[in-house]
Amino acid sequence: MNQRSDRFTCSEIADRVGGTLNGQPNIRLAGIKTLERAGPGELSFLVSTRYLEQFRNTNADAVLVSTQLSSTIINSPTTLISVADVRTALREALDLFSQQPTSCWGIDRTARLGTGVSWEGRISIGAFAKLGSNVILGRDCVINDGAVIEANATIGDECYVGSNAYVGSSTKVGNRVVIKPGARIGTSGYGYTQTDDGHIRMPHLGRCILGDDVEIGSNSTVDRGSVDDTIVGPGTKVDNLVQIAHNVRIGQRCLIMSQVGLAGSTIVEDDVSIAGQAGLAGHLTIGKRARLAAQAGVIGDIPAGQTVSGYPARAHREVLRQAAALRRLTPLVSTLEKIVEKNGP
Amino acid sequence: MNQRSDRFTCSEIADRVGGTLNGQPNIRLAGIKTLERAGPGELSFLVSTRYLEQFRNTNADAVLVSTQLSSTIINSPTTLISVADVRTALREALDLFSQQPTSCWGIDRTARLGTGVSWEGRISIGAFAKLGSNVILGRDCVINDGAVIEANATIGDECYVGSNAYVGSSTKVGNRVVIKPGARIGTSGYGYTQTDDGHIRMPHLGRCILGDDVEIGSNSTVDRGSVDDTIVGPGTKVDNLVQIAHNVRIGQRCLIMSQVGLAGSTIVEDDVSIAGQAGLAGHLTIGKRARLAAQAGVIGDIPAGQTVSGYPARAHREVLRQAAALRRLTPLVSTLEKIVEKNGP
Amino acid sequence: MNQRSDRFTCSEIADRVGGTLNGQPNIRLAGIKTLERAGPGELSFLVSTRYLEQFRNTNADAVLVSTQLSSTIINSPTTLISVADVRTALREALDLFSQQPTSCWGIDRTARLGTGVSWEGRISIGAFAKLGSNVILGRDCVINDGAVIEANATIGDECYVGSNAYVGSSTKVGNRVVIKPGARIGTSGYGYTQTDDGHIRMPHLGRCILGDDVEIGSNSTVDRGSVDDTIVGPGTKVDNLVQIAHNVRIGQRCLIMSQVGLAGSTIVEDDVSIAGQAGLAGHLTIGKRARLAAQAGVIGDIPAGQTVSGYPARAHREVLRQAAALRRLTPLVSTLEKIVEKNGP
Repeated sequence: MNQRSDRFTCSEIADRVGGTLNGQPNIRLAGIKTLERAGPGELSFLVSTRYLEQFRNTNADAVLVSTQLSSTIINSPTTLISVADVRTALREALDLFSQQPTSCWGIDRTARLGTGVSWEGRISIGAFAKLGSNVILGRDCVINDGAVIEANATIGDECYVGSNAYVGSSTKVGNRVVIKPGARIGTSGYGYTQTDDGHIRMPHLGRCILGDDVEIGSNSTVDRGSVDDTIVGPGTKVDNLVQIAHNVRIGQRCLIMSQVGLAGSTIVEDDVSIAGQAGLAGHLTIGKRARLAAQAGVIGDIPAGQTVSGYPARAHREVLRQAAALRRLTPLVSTLEKIVEKNGP
Repeated sequence: MNQRSDRFTCSEIADRVGGTLNGQPNIRLAGIKTLERAGPGELSFLVSTRYLEQFRNTNADAVLVSTQLSSTIINSPTTLISVADVRTALREALDLFSQQPTSCWGIDRTARLGTGVSWEGRISIGAFAKLGSNVILGRDCVINDGAVIEANATIGDECYVGSNAYVGSSTKVGNRVVIKPGARIGTSGYGYTQTDDGHIRMPHLGRCILGDDVEIGSNSTVDRGSVDDTIVGPGTKVDNLVQIAHNVRIGQRCLIMSQVGLAGSTIVEDDVSIAGQAGLAGHLTIGKRARLAAQAGVIGDIPAGQTVSGYPARAHREVLRQAAALRRLTPLVSTLEKIVEKNGP
Repeated sequence: MNQRSDRFTCSEIADRVGGTLNGQPNIRLAGIKTLERAGPGELSFLVSTRYLEQFRNTNADAVLVSTQLSSTIINSPTTLISVADVRTALREALDLFSQQPTSCWGIDRTARLGTGVSWEGRISIGAFAKLGSNVILGRDCVINDGAVIEANATIGDECYVGSNAYVGSSTKVGNRVVIKPGARIGTSGYGYTQTDDGHIRMPHLGRCILGDDVEIGSNSTVDRGSVDDTIVGPGTKVDNLVQIAHNVRIGQRCLIMSQVGLAGSTIVEDDVSIAGQAGLAGHLTIGKRARLAAQAGVIGDIPAGQTVSGYPARAHREVLRQAAALRRLTPLVSTLEKIVEKNGP
């Protein structure tokens, strides 16, 4: 996607993002850049007070800013467009300036389609893509170069399967799902039984089910279920390099950030947020709206709404208290040892 | 793999898994589901007391249960099949119900084979697969769509190379090895020397060697050796998104779970278990049967048989003792500070 | 790459690596192996005192050793070649023995090139590679089997794009860049705004820019910028399975080891070293020459030159002091509790 050449006045942009303009309404803007890099004729945005210095020095002709923050700004060097939520306004402004790539509808002559593959409306299938027999696609799907979709998978409307991504047999994908390049969906999981002959693989008869509006990041892996299905609920967004093991069930609208790992059969309820590199043991339940901090190592159930961090993960407030306590105790150790010696055990 | 339509009586299943039947021997079962989802005419399984409530409410017509657990169950709501190990019995039952996909033997017309590629017996090579010159395969191998095997690699009997996986030149793969989609085997490693002109790459002349019955998970990476070879020993199972660096040597029957990282030249002896997201520094030795907990950060050698956790990884028992101590000391900090002040340094 | 059959005398090798020979100058050597595996007619190397026992027992006919270490060795069992830096000498010796694979210049008949693709001098494009329209390549580039390079990407001289790797549209790649198999460069990032309709994706209009001599490891992911570009500076080496999020800016000559994760908009200055599995939150600045230990969890800015570890990452020296303090306090807890009880709160 590139920025296109149309221009909009500050006032038109304020209208579009539902903001209040304070400054020059008629300057024409041609694009969006960061505070540091924007120049005359460009829009910028201030997402946090962390960037106030860059704001003071910006050459942008207008800046998106939160209503809350804008009230504290005196003598703004530039036109301000005040909005309730800067990120939402930024998204809307980016949409305004962005030039959607025109999808190349049609099937590349090198693509290989098995018997019984079907779709509705328009379709785009890239070079060297391979669809197994009886793959069913909805309307307006884009399957990129080198993607492999195995037999009997069903995929909804307006889905995107990235380059060299993999969708295993019998996987069930909802509408508007994005599977980024190199993601592996519905592969056989890591399940073995130990015998005298070594570890013997468990058959994996379950499927992988992705709900509507799910996104799976680049090179992430989602194993199929062994007996039950592996499920990622509607609206859940999964970042790059995430591991979701067999039989995991994730609810709706969860955010699962990069390099998170979920072991087998763990249940994540709705609206949970899991920050980067956190790891969850198997067979756990993470309650609704729980928040797991980056690198948290979760080895027990987490109640709804709780924020946890550390290893083993526990209430974040407790982690902070313990860290502060250790910091204060560290310089006292020698004296405490002497006192203990004096007082006897 | 899907479940097939055959039916077996409870008594036939008990015979197959070597279990003791307590209930209705003649009910016919048509499939396996979890306790929550199984209905009449279906088998289920109870793997832990954690699921006792679901067991009490199940609609399954029969349940696999451990002999130990079954002795504690009074008034079972369903027929019980008691076995020594539920997971082994479950695997055997799944094998009974699973319908092996008939492999499509033959070479897709789009596959590209270099000069001197050879194999024995049957072979399946998928669409857009590329085999370099002098690749040698055993019998009954399956190379899936888009896989790349570089020149002079040798691969044993009954191996599986998944979609878009990569096997580097001169890699040596044993029998019955599974390389899942997107795994990268025998790539050049991360080795540099620092010079005035920046970091200069070390040549990687070693190979990557996978023993019999090795499995490598989706999107995992195993670098080739720089001077020596990188070795994964027979029967070792590697999960998804694992990093195995150059010159690492892993013994037999190890379990290496998802997102584990092993830095260069580290030696892992036989029967070691490394849980998810654990990381090992380079040039270490991990003794036989050692167990590394999830997220353990290992920066020194680990003796045989030891269980370690935390960062830096140390005996798990000691980690627990220290965590408990800190928990008890935290509310005492202010008083301890006063006592120290009174007693002087 | 394989070792070739040429032979060099110890004296020739000492000359090549700028070392001082102590022993037999005229023995001919045919290859390099580790101390354990080298035999007569082979060169080996001693990188650390850790391997002194293997050195004492080696059958190698000559060993590269640091000048510092060689001065402590009495009665060497083999010819010594003393050098300032063993790893640099090893690299030079490996170069001497290694046989560069002759690149197959030319374009495989199955490759798909869009309109306007251009290059200079020689080029190698593998089977099933796909280059979108207006991709511009410099001279002597190698694009391996199944790689996908999207429209309008520009790639410099002597670059390597590995098998099944992905380079997104409008990505800008410098000279001598190595992108290993399965790496995903310039994919759309993980950016959403929360609305009543769930999380809505931010458009990603920025590019991904890789400087000269950058290397990106297998299956690593580098997202494109949302507004600004994502930048990896010249000479920076990125290992396997690393995540670099949108708008991250990395300076020159950094070392980013396996499974590291960098969240959005974080700035890493020149010559920073980040060890395996470390994680960095978004919007941080890591100062020049800072060193982040393995598994460090960084949630605040790090000053130039500092070495940090732990979660939350802090000065490594402080981490060690606190760990030692906790170790000493742990056996005293019960006594300290009694003392506090006696002294009152």
